[in-house]
Amino acid sequence: MSQTPDFPLVIDLNVGGVVYTTTLKKLTSHPNSKLFGIFTGSEPVEKDSKGRFSLHRDGVLFRYVLDFLRDGTFLLPYCFRDKERLKNEAEKLPLQGLVEAITSENRVKPPGVITVGYRGSFQFGKDGLAEAKLSRILFSGRVALCREVFGETLNENRDPDHGQLERYTSRFFLKHSFLEQTFDMLVEQGLKMVGSCGSGTFGGSSDLKPGVDAEENRWNHYNEFVFMRD
Amino acid sequence: MSQTPDFPLVIDLNVGGVVYTTTLKKLTSHPNSKLFGIFTGSEPVEKDSKGRFSLHRDGVLFRYVLDFLRDGTFLLPYCFRDKERLKNEAEKLPLQGLVEAITSENRVKPPGVITVGYRGSFQFGKDGLAEAKLSRILFSGRVALCREVFGETLNENRDPDHGQLERYTSRFFLKHSFLEQTFDMLVEQGLKMVGSCGSGTFGGSSDLKPGVDAEENRWNHYNEFVFMRD
Amino acid sequence: MSQTPDFPLVIDLNVGGVVYTTTLKKLTSHPNSKLFGIFTGSEPVEKDSKGRFSLHRDGVLFRYVLDFLRDGTFLLPYCFRDKERLKNEAEKLPLQGLVEAITSENRVKPPGVITVGYRGSFQFGKDGLAEAKLSRILFSGRVALCREVFGETLNENRDPDHGQLERYTSRFFLKHSFLEQTFDMLVEQGLKMVGSCGSGTFGGSSDLKPGVDAEENRWNHYNEFVFMRD
Amino acid sequence: MSQTPDFPLVIDLNVGGVVYTTTLKKLTSHPNSKLFGIFTGSEPVEKDSKGRFSLHRDGVLFRYVLDFLRDGTFLLPYCFRDKERLKNEAEKLPLQGLVEAITSENRVKPPGVITVGYRGSFQFGKDGLAEAKLSRILFSGRVALCREVFGETLNENRDPDHGQLERYTSRFFLKHSFLEQTFDMLVEQGLKMVGSCGSGTFGGSSDLKPGVDAEENRWNHYNEFVFMRD
Amino acid sequence: MSQTPDFPLVIDLNVGGVVYTTTLKKLTSHPNSKLFGIFTGSEPVEKDSKGRFSLHRDGVLFRYVLDFLRDGTFLLPYCFRDKERLKNEAEKLPLQGLVEAITSENRVKPPGVITVGYRGSFQFGKDGLAEAKLSRILFSGRVALCREVFGETLNENRDPDHGQLERYTSRFFLKHSFLEQTFDMLVEQGLKMVGSCGSGTFGGSSDLKPGVDAEENRWNHYNEFVFMRD
Repeated sequence: MSQTPDFPLVIDLNVGGVVYTTTLKKLTSHPNSKLFGIFTGSEPVEKDSKGRFSLHRDGVLFRYVLDFLRDGTFLLPYCFRDKERLKNEAEKLPLQGLVEAITSENRVKPPGVITVGYRGSFQFGKDGLAEAKLSRILFSGRVALCREVFGETLNENRDPDHGQLERYTSRFFLKHSFLEQTFDMLVEQGLKMVGSCGSGTFGGSSDLKPGVDAEENRWNHYNEFVFMRD
Repeated sequence: MSQTPDFPLVIDLNVGGVVYTTTLKKLTSHPNSKLFGIFTGSEPVEKDSKGRFSLHRDGVLFRYVLDFLRDGTFLLPYCFRDKERLKNEAEKLPLQGLVEAITSENRVKPPGVITVGYRGSFQFGKDGLAEAKLSRILFSGRVALCREVFGETLNENRDPDHGQLERYTSRFFLKHSFLEQTFDMLVEQGLKMVGSCGSGTFGGSSDLKPGVDAEENRWNHYNEFVFMRD
Repeated sequence: MSQTPDFPLVIDLNVGGVVYTTTLKKLTSHPNSKLFGIFTGSEPVEKDSKGRFSLHRDGVLFRYVLDFLRDGTFLLPYCFRDKERLKNEAEKLPLQGLVEAITSENRVKPPGVITVGYRGSFQFGKDGLAEAKLSRILFSGRVALCREVFGETLNENRDPDHGQLERYTSRFFLKHSFLEQTFDMLVEQGLKMVGSCGSGTFGGSSDLKPGVDAEENRWNHYNEFVFMRD
Repeated sequence: MSQTPDFPLVIDLNVGGVVYTTTLKKLTSHPNSKLFGIFTGSEPVEKDSKGRFSLHRDGVLFRYVLDFLRDGTFLLPYCFRDKERLKNEAEKLPLQGLVEAITSENRVKPPGVITVGYRGSFQFGKDGLAEAKLSRILFSGRVALCREVFGETLNENRDPDHGQLERYTSRFFLKHSFLEQTFDMLVEQGLKMVGSCGSGTFGGSSDLKPGVDAEENRWNHYNEFVFMRD
Repeated sequence: MSQTPDFPLVIDLNVGGVVYTTTLKKLTSHPNSKLFGIFTGSEPVEKDSKGRFSLHRDGVLFRYVLDFLRDGTFLLPYCFRDKERLKNEAEKLPLQGLVEAITSENRVKPPGVITVGYRGSFQFGKDGLAEAKLSRILFSGRVALCREVFGETLNENRDPDHGQLERYTSRFFLKHSFLEQTFDMLVEQGLKMVGSCGSGTFGGSSDLKPGVDAEENRWNHYNEFVFMRD
């Protein structure tokens, strides 16, 4: 690196047939990369027939490599479909910072299912108006996933088998009883509702427990919602 | 700006390897931008090997920058996937008006869930024809979201805890009882139906309240619909 | 237009940096357009550094402008995402015919919801085979939308409030009772099923109306389907 | 065609501004096409400023035309969005074989709806294990669509109105009673499940038919599934 | 191959009009390919008007061919839509390794349906808290698909007709009774939930079996979920 050759400040690159123009400064901004080696003169580089420096890598994906060299930032288009190939480019160059950025963005949450259900009915006021009334929210799923989604709001008191994360359980509870808050927490962790089903109960007045309102009993229902993360 | 250099009226730009042709007038239309500085001669600019002015920014995204310079308008393709990177370009140039336009377009409505339910049955006429009959529409969700969606049509009289926007409630009501109007209002605010479930009731004639039609009672059902905004 | 300048028959255009080749005849096919003015010599035009005629408009979208000039037809890719920007180009050129074509294609049907339900059971033959049996199909929604979807097959006799299109109603009926035909008509007008829920009834034999089959009564159900147009 | 001019074996084309390189042999492979006429010398052709043969057609879509000329095959990208414009190109050239290939690929199956339902319960063995038990599968829809989907497995014996294809019917049956096989057949013909709903029955033991198991009767349900083809 | 002609180390290719730059070494890395033949001098190759070697194949798809030649790897963008055309290119070149890589990636799992259901209720503790309780999970579908999805967890003891893979069955069971684990296994094999429906039962206390809790009996429900693989 002591003998810096005579590179121009503005550099035309031919990357696999696609032409880019950038600065010498950007191309030498990452020591340990092949680009640094080339444009400080310690690694050989070929020129194409028009005198442009030739990099034998994918021409289109180099656009994002240049992004990284230019600003040090790493922003991909929404739903970018070519991450695997871009990672391959970063590994071959190599640009360790870019490899790490792609890898960390690729780290997706594992798939899984949580089923949420509630037993509900209506509370009938004297004015004839009804309000929804729901018992404790029930849910079941893999222990690790339940903990990830519900965190602090999880009540594990009734579950006897602590610590086996891969186990499936239906014995956890939530400390609150807001259905929509439950849904919000599931959505926040990337689960989507994929199914829902409801059922009523037989609520004849003949076998009512003392203190249970007959009309309320009649409207008993159990609604169940399935959430999945792909 | 006193010493305007000799720029041609039609200007060839090499933006990171992509070539654009535009006018001097457009490029100097935004004071405070780097482009204004360059093309009024107060900032330096390099040329590529073919004598085109070189901007070391992303070549593809510059297309939308040029749009902005040309017409002062800001129109992106439907579902444009590269807003983050375009914003980065606008910040680096800088073009404050473009940064603001992208930022304001990015301001998305927060996700959330509203559950809508109704207790319904049918009214049986003497001609044997039935009409759908539904009690007041019930819904629940986060207070702020309910207010955003239903606005003026919301009746908060029965809700005792005014003002806590992050609270979840099931005590709001609508001033009307049209299911489809409720759905229309939810859809208008970007919520989509993701689940639906129904349940019947036990409606034996033995425990009917006075004045309740037995056939109508038999067809009682509670249908529930979940709406989400991602 | 009297002094036609000396334009070649095949013309190279530089549209914002993208090069197109077309004929003089096509470029002058629309009087009142700026292109007509330019290529009949009555409006000035600049040339780029390679002698190509320069149009300072978006280079990529000009492809569809050229389509329009070439064949007079207007065909966009399926789900084309750049209509707003293309319309802006057409307005700036201007090409009134193209503006109108895009505007008319953009005119989308308004969003809305229709809920369809039916009360059904089964008819049990002597051979033990059952056939589905359904009462009149019920539906509700905004009056204007119901009329748009069901047209001639709509029976409005039981609805007292004629003529208020923005009203919501559940008093319209269909003249036929084919569930699938109803669905077909909804789909044809761009509505999609987004939810469905069912409920049974209490059908104890003790309170059956005369002439009602006990087994048929037992299988009573009400199924409801929600259709939406975004 | 008698006076074949002196065309090179490798030909540079400028198609509306996009450059392609191909062989004389490929371009003259389809008699009756304009390309054949041009490159056998019987039709005139212009050259662009760089001496390339100019075709005044869409430059991007010509890629697929070249595919067709090269291999005689016709393969489009999955979900290709530009079929209408490609067909227009094929018609203008003209390349009758290509027009036919696109037309035949565009021929889509008509939209439609089929509703499938089954009455089911469970068979309780002495070991306490239950197995699903389902009566004959019921379905309804337009006659022509039902025949298209179920073909040979359709039993039309109970339907009295033979031959009216546009009629809707609920009187056809399947010769088998496998729910999943029914679903498989629907999916195979391009229908997708868009809704599903279930309902239980009142199954009090007081009015059971002789020989009906009380527990089995209690679990009676009717599940209904709606399938649509857009 | 004995008389290696004088090819440069860096080679400009004109592939159907698109220009690529790569090395001689990469182009000759696959014996048996036409590229090997050309660039070892045993097969003829034409040059375009600028002296670049001409390959009369699709210019855009050659990008992935070059990927394969460069690294020996085969990575396509997520949801790549042009596999059929890329395979055609690989066959015509020919590059047997690339043909095989595409073919093996194309090998999709066959479509199919599995229906999962469970009979459930709630266990009511003395503290008034309820826990979900579910009987054995039931499912039905084509034998081969059931085996593929559930593998070792499948209990086939009650199914008398061993070995007919195309048969549909509802007699298999799972060795566990975790609904979410069942769903996880279905999702893992590419099936998605497309429908769900629930139904309650008549649970009057008059005909309860000895030892059955009345409240638990009242909440009996059967929920059914349909999974499909397209």
